[in-house]
Amino acid sequence: MTIRAVDLIVKKRSGETLSRFEIQSLFDLYLKDEVPDYQMSALLMAIFFNGMKDQELIDWTQAMMNSGEVLSFPHLNAPKVDKHSTGGVGDKISIPLAPLLAACGFYVPMMSGRGLGHTGGTLDKLESITGFNTRQAVDDFERLLRENKVAMIGQTETLVPADKRLYALRDVTGTVPSIPLIASSIMSKKLAEGMESLVLDVKVGKGAFMQTIDDARALAQACIALGQGMGKKVRAVITQMDQPLGEAIGNTLEILESIDILLGKGPTDCRQLVIDFAEALLEMNGLDKSLATQKLDDGSAYQYFIQMVKAQGGDVTLITHPEKFQRAKFKYEYKAKSTGYLSQAHALLIGEGCRCLGAGRAKTSDVINPAVGAFIYKKVGDFVNEGDCLMLVEHDEIGLADAIERFDLAFQIQTAKVEPLPLIFESLGD
Amino acid sequence: MTIRAVDLIVKKRSGETLSRFEIQSLFDLYLKDEVPDYQMSALLMAIFFNGMKDQELIDWTQAMMNSGEVLSFPHLNAPKVDKHSTGGVGDKISIPLAPLLAACGFYVPMMSGRGLGHTGGTLDKLESITGFNTRQAVDDFERLLRENKVAMIGQTETLVPADKRLYALRDVTGTVPSIPLIASSIMSKKLAEGMESLVLDVKVGKGAFMQTIDDARALAQACIALGQGMGKKVRAVITQMDQPLGEAIGNTLEILESIDILLGKGPTDCRQLVIDFAEALLEMNGLDKSLATQKLDDGSAYQYFIQMVKAQGGDVTLITHPEKFQRAKFKYEYKAKSTGYLSQAHALLIGEGCRCLGAGRAKTSDVINPAVGAFIYKKVGDFVNEGDCLMLVEHDEIGLADAIERFDLAFQIQTAKVEPLPLIFESLGD
Repeated sequence: MTIRAVDLIVKKRSGETLSRFEIQSLFDLYLKDEVPDYQMSALLMAIFFNGMKDQELIDWTQAMMNSGEVLSFPHLNAPKVDKHSTGGVGDKISIPLAPLLAACGFYVPMMSGRGLGHTGGTLDKLESITGFNTRQAVDDFERLLRENKVAMIGQTETLVPADKRLYALRDVTGTVPSIPLIASSIMSKKLAEGMESLVLDVKVGKGAFMQTIDDARALAQACIALGQGMGKKVRAVITQMDQPLGEAIGNTLEILESIDILLGKGPTDCRQLVIDFAEALLEMNGLDKSLATQKLDDGSAYQYFIQMVKAQGGDVTLITHPEKFQRAKFKYEYKAKSTGYLSQAHALLIGEGCRCLGAGRAKTSDVINPAVGAFIYKKVGDFVNEGDCLMLVEHDEIGLADAIERFDLAFQIQTAKVEPLPLIFESLGD
Repeated sequence: MTIRAVDLIVKKRSGETLSRFEIQSLFDLYLKDEVPDYQMSALLMAIFFNGMKDQELIDWTQAMMNSGEVLSFPHLNAPKVDKHSTGGVGDKISIPLAPLLAACGFYVPMMSGRGLGHTGGTLDKLESITGFNTRQAVDDFERLLRENKVAMIGQTETLVPADKRLYALRDVTGTVPSIPLIASSIMSKKLAEGMESLVLDVKVGKGAFMQTIDDARALAQACIALGQGMGKKVRAVITQMDQPLGEAIGNTLEILESIDILLGKGPTDCRQLVIDFAEALLEMNGLDKSLATQKLDDGSAYQYFIQMVKAQGGDVTLITHPEKFQRAKFKYEYKAKSTGYLSQAHALLIGEGCRCLGAGRAKTSDVINPAVGAFIYKKVGDFVNEGDCLMLVEHDEIGLADAIERFDLAFQIQTAKVEPLPLIFESLGD
């Protein structure tokens, strides 16, 4: 019995539900190039409009996951945990969190992505540490994990090949912002990498993919259902991304801030999320929550980070002597234009401004400049005087005018008092 | 200024309206293969869900029309008229109608299609006349028209190439049943062939593409708006296609019935539609309606048909001596299974049954057998006795069992009286 892709498209277009057999057959044929992209893109658009039922989404995600290798580490005798963020500006949380989780006793098989658009990617940030190799084969990933309890790598070629193809197709066919498609893309990769418990940071706001709490909640619920449907523990935390997270934006600068956090310092909001997410995973696994603060403040997490950098080929002297990092040639103080309360520090515009400097990519083929970026010193609700430095921009001359144009739109100051933004909205799942 | 296809897809997906410039640019790029099919299919699916605004549909249709040659015949000094049907079972109306319109003084530049699925195509029917050549270049089409006032040909390679590509893509991507896409496909071809007034037969019912009067009306209105928007006269007539039209189903058999109609005979329903459509075009052009019946009954239409067959290379002796047509080897009387009123003669199932015999194609590469088909002798509402012949099936042994299986589902007889089905529901437009 064979399926015809057009029949599946018609079914989905008409609001019906695809069966596990149909979905599995579709992916088999698609990966053998027997279903062409023009049929897949029509189906993706039909899914955009008609969504997927719970079981259908599980079947779809499993088919994606099973399109390649599925890792598990039964011989590693401790819970395997991971954290994923839907992405935001200044979001370097994974970098201090992963070694902290190792220090708490977990194995942390963390596969991350690159940045595109206004948000940075964990891999790009790590690669600003000279020599740090995020391209690891599955065997090396397993060895790194066994030896150091934590490994932070890019997606391997062999894991979830269906996601790479579908994502590239969605990107050019207007089918990215579909909650079931986003959920299946996130979860197929997390489920293939061998984790057992996951904290999912669903960002919402001006600099996030999700613009409303309702959308963020829908995505969180879809991911939780998918993970739980496959026997994993998943907690989703909906967090604010109207303004950048922490102070540092840009690859090297975010590594510097990550080191600070690992030394028990760093901006309050970053430290809070790192600890909260570590506590969540400890709690989900029935372990002592207090370990999170303890292992961050006693230097254990920092030591795991040093070990990981070393094991993955990175120059450890950069971590122990952060002043050795190569920095941008120029500094520019972006100043407040009036006196009053900061009412907006628009994350998307600030992220786009830093991208103009070279901190990010507009298209996948763009090469990033690890050194450039900015430190943002004020949060929404802060009182500022005209002429106060809002951001210290570190640049190599390229794109500064374009960046400033965006910063001018990003910041708003008003005379009436402004409440600080909340950091965390709600928590769902396990 | 260039457009990016993905931006247009996102716009359409979000329910916005594409501009004339965007649509024209899209088609330019698509026909140069600079927009791939996977983007076009995603856009078509977004159009399926979000529709098109009136002006947007005009722009889309004009872009399709302008993708190839656009004919006009300013030197032919009489109105150029055409009729198009959305297709049904036993629908041979164009074949007697075209020469009748010529006899009424019109020029009739008629481009028709082939059959696919359960409905027959005018070209296939005409080609059952040995030698009849429906593949004519644009120059020959113009000459045939000038010399004979009527020419019935297939779509040339140079007219509306965008429609050929889009239709093939829609067929495999589940995007056929979209009213704006259907309307633009019909009207771009009619507008390119040089007609000035059009009667559109929108069929509705079990054997038609449109299943409800509302859908039929929506399609009719879209086509009228398109034609009128480009300065043409368009009248749409919504007609019933629950049961087959006339008696003959199958290519040769429908030519035989067409000859009967041209001789002033033939089934009442066919004769009525032929006269009604001719009267409509006469009226729309301010001419004397009574010409329709007159020119059909005085043999003028028949003479135009003879001339057209001759001019297009067909064997005229088949028309003057229809008994010379090659017929199928076997006859099978399909009989009533009970006594009562015929309450259903399901056009789709009867059409599919005849396709099983070889009268039509399941896929475009199928070769049809012109001789096979059936004469259906009873209409819904007729009283029949058990054992009465409902259909005389003419077959060459192939597919008879499959055909009978469908006929068994097609016919229903009940004891309570049944009203005959109406032939015409309503008329819209000019």
